[in-house]
Amino acid sequence: MLSIDFTNVLADAVGADNGITKEDAATLISRTTAAHEQLEKWRASGDALFYDIVDEDCLLSGIPEKAAEVSERFDNVVVLGIGGSALGLRAASQALLPSHWNLRTKESREGRPRLFVCDNIDPESFSGLLGLIDIEKTCFTIISKSGRTTETAAQLLVVLDHLKALLGENWHENVVIITDPEAGELRPMVRELGLTAFSIPPKLGGRFSVLSPVGLFPAACVGIDVEELVNGARAMASRCSEPSLETNPGYHIGAAFYQFDTAKRKNMSVMFSYSDALMLTADWYAQLWAESLGKSGRGQTPVRAVGTTDQHSQVQLYMEGPADKVFTFVGVEKFRTPAEATRISDAPKAFSYLNGHDLGSILRAEQVATSRALTEMGRPNMTVTFPQIDAHHLGEFFMLYEVATAFAGALYEIDPFNQPGVELGKKLTREILQR
Amino acid sequence: MLSIDFTNVLADAVGADNGITKEDAATLISRTTAAHEQLEKWRASGDALFYDIVDEDCLLSGIPEKAAEVSERFDNVVVLGIGGSALGLRAASQALLPSHWNLRTKESREGRPRLFVCDNIDPESFSGLLGLIDIEKTCFTIISKSGRTTETAAQLLVVLDHLKALLGENWHENVVIITDPEAGELRPMVRELGLTAFSIPPKLGGRFSVLSPVGLFPAACVGIDVEELVNGARAMASRCSEPSLETNPGYHIGAAFYQFDTAKRKNMSVMFSYSDALMLTADWYAQLWAESLGKSGRGQTPVRAVGTTDQHSQVQLYMEGPADKVFTFVGVEKFRTPAEATRISDAPKAFSYLNGHDLGSILRAEQVATSRALTEMGRPNMTVTFPQIDAHHLGEFFMLYEVATAFAGALYEIDPFNQPGVELGKKLTREILQR
Repeated sequence: MLSIDFTNVLADAVGADNGITKEDAATLISRTTAAHEQLEKWRASGDALFYDIVDEDCLLSGIPEKAAEVSERFDNVVVLGIGGSALGLRAASQALLPSHWNLRTKESREGRPRLFVCDNIDPESFSGLLGLIDIEKTCFTIISKSGRTTETAAQLLVVLDHLKALLGENWHENVVIITDPEAGELRPMVRELGLTAFSIPPKLGGRFSVLSPVGLFPAACVGIDVEELVNGARAMASRCSEPSLETNPGYHIGAAFYQFDTAKRKNMSVMFSYSDALMLTADWYAQLWAESLGKSGRGQTPVRAVGTTDQHSQVQLYMEGPADKVFTFVGVEKFRTPAEATRISDAPKAFSYLNGHDLGSILRAEQVATSRALTEMGRPNMTVTFPQIDAHHLGEFFMLYEVATAFAGALYEIDPFNQPGVELGKKLTREILQR
Repeated sequence: MLSIDFTNVLADAVGADNGITKEDAATLISRTTAAHEQLEKWRASGDALFYDIVDEDCLLSGIPEKAAEVSERFDNVVVLGIGGSALGLRAASQALLPSHWNLRTKESREGRPRLFVCDNIDPESFSGLLGLIDIEKTCFTIISKSGRTTETAAQLLVVLDHLKALLGENWHENVVIITDPEAGELRPMVRELGLTAFSIPPKLGGRFSVLSPVGLFPAACVGIDVEELVNGARAMASRCSEPSLETNPGYHIGAAFYQFDTAKRKNMSVMFSYSDALMLTADWYAQLWAESLGKSGRGQTPVRAVGTTDQHSQVQLYMEGPADKVFTFVGVEKFRTPAEATRISDAPKAFSYLNGHDLGSILRAEQVATSRALTEMGRPNMTVTFPQIDAHHLGEFFMLYEVATAFAGALYEIDPFNQPGVELGKKLTREILQR
């Protein structure tokens, strides 16, 4: 079970100007019932479907079978998708696959495919990738609920040219579509050509979709234990079901960060991961938090950092710059690499303090030291700890922050499930391209 | 030559509340002479050595020869370094090497080595890497001016165990050290064992060191044209020599962003790169800007974004969240991939607006559209355009932002070359490890 430590967000630790006071807590507690009822309404209407989807019996239906076939038959899985269609999978694959996955030999991957998540339309990297892989041995998974996403459509059109030229009619076998069950631009293609497809529930928003076929199917293709991912999420959903800030960690986080933004002048929320494997969970969180809550002139900006790397880049600012941030350390209790593999025993005098330590214990010490130093400077910070990084705990993490975000949305009194602010850019893009 | 467009930071474009007014400009112009004189003093004292180092005849001395030897003899270059010892090289190698460099075959790399920049001590990824590479065929480049950086020392100690076990005394040949010419913990080892080494000028700070052996030697090892990198920087240094905001783009940027932070309530500076290859230049900038200017309770937080990816993650917040940000679009006029490679010609009706376009032209259209949409919402933004991505233009970019940062430091009236705020964390780390 993830452990969550709020000590250093409290006024007792960082002072009344920068921390949550008893009065802050009382105000937040007084609003909890109403916010909880709002969440219940969103669940009833299907807007907060993320909560309940993990309980659906058919959630994984057909996924393990098709994933096993893809894994057996193909050397590469290339996912075409952007935003919510990419970030959850990127986070999960970085967290749960061994490091340097795509650079490993097939044997070291236990025969499982390499994974490329294409969430940009940069021509240099996209055509670089197509030149690199054996397209015949590649399963392309196209993810877009509406099928109208410009970037994904453009990628697909480029890929289809290659597939058709190489494989003729057989290209159908190299494609899996994940889209709306009925509507949109991709579903007719699925029907007409009899393509393999999985459905995204129509009410489920992209940034809340990692625990649907969007994230689960490609994750399963590379051998991630998607059942445990869902089990972890389900455990956290149950932990996050009570209408109490004390016992519901999702509500607790949502309320605290709402308060920091609106009452403590912390317009930034820094997620500081002390693990390379968890780096992209911060990118996933950044979309969730920004796109859900950044509206009506309000919202807190998520900032991604990784330790210890960013101690040598951002910590000067975090320590001595303006007091405009609240921090979340995301750490790991036990790394998957045995300590012996990186143990230091024979350090010269200047580094004698490293003797007996391994890279993992040094990393953890630096995390604790940075948290303490920030606390000493009155910078509020909380810590989420993975006992170890595995599918179960990552599932917990995803659900924890989905609940926190929805709850914060209720406190902000905005709709956390829409994104009206991106329409103007889409309209202008079309105008420019049509000229 | 980089082109720089300030139109959308002006009050005429985004309104007087959010843009630079005539009065703002007059205030900044009135402070330019004094700030310029401060920069001249920093140049004279050696603090602003970054400016002048690119004119030194011996800057590249010995680098091409040793780099050619490394490139010929080794399959991998692994750099151990963190912060300023890593970020410039990461930015340069991502920008200037073909995409997916480490995944390419040796032939497609024209025989040049793969490059791994290890700027964290995560035990899973670090020992994953050591398990992946043939250590005998790897050149380890260790970069630390003081030689006292905990992370780099820990990495080196782990690597030395492997090297000694595998190669005995011959391990010396697999190591290159980049450090202070006289002082520090690494120089004695260089002398005692006769290791190959390059010097970091003692006055040159890490975050200003990309155009010294720190960035140039490993870049040369993988075949980057380091001479053109320096030429580009030199050209920009000359463009940035005049004491006038109008004609000196470095001063112009420094002054504008200082004003946004201190007078326009924009405590965030978002660098929004519309190119995968330029993504890490934003990380390099983020260290430069944060660590130089984040002190005495002041400083603007750098935020990294990449287009079009982050349109589907952060743009909702950028458009409709608080007006607390100023943006820099970094775009590319001509991509290195021929347009034909990703041209779309046969799009179905829903995507007919894509016909005739290629991924590069779509990417550029989205950049322009996003800039216009932000402008329409009163969000100030400027644009830096690379005619194409190459060593010369990247050298210009590095120098442009080094000058902008130093100039902003003069306006903030702080010392942009120190970083006192990281000491407490270092002290606490040692205490924890020594317990």
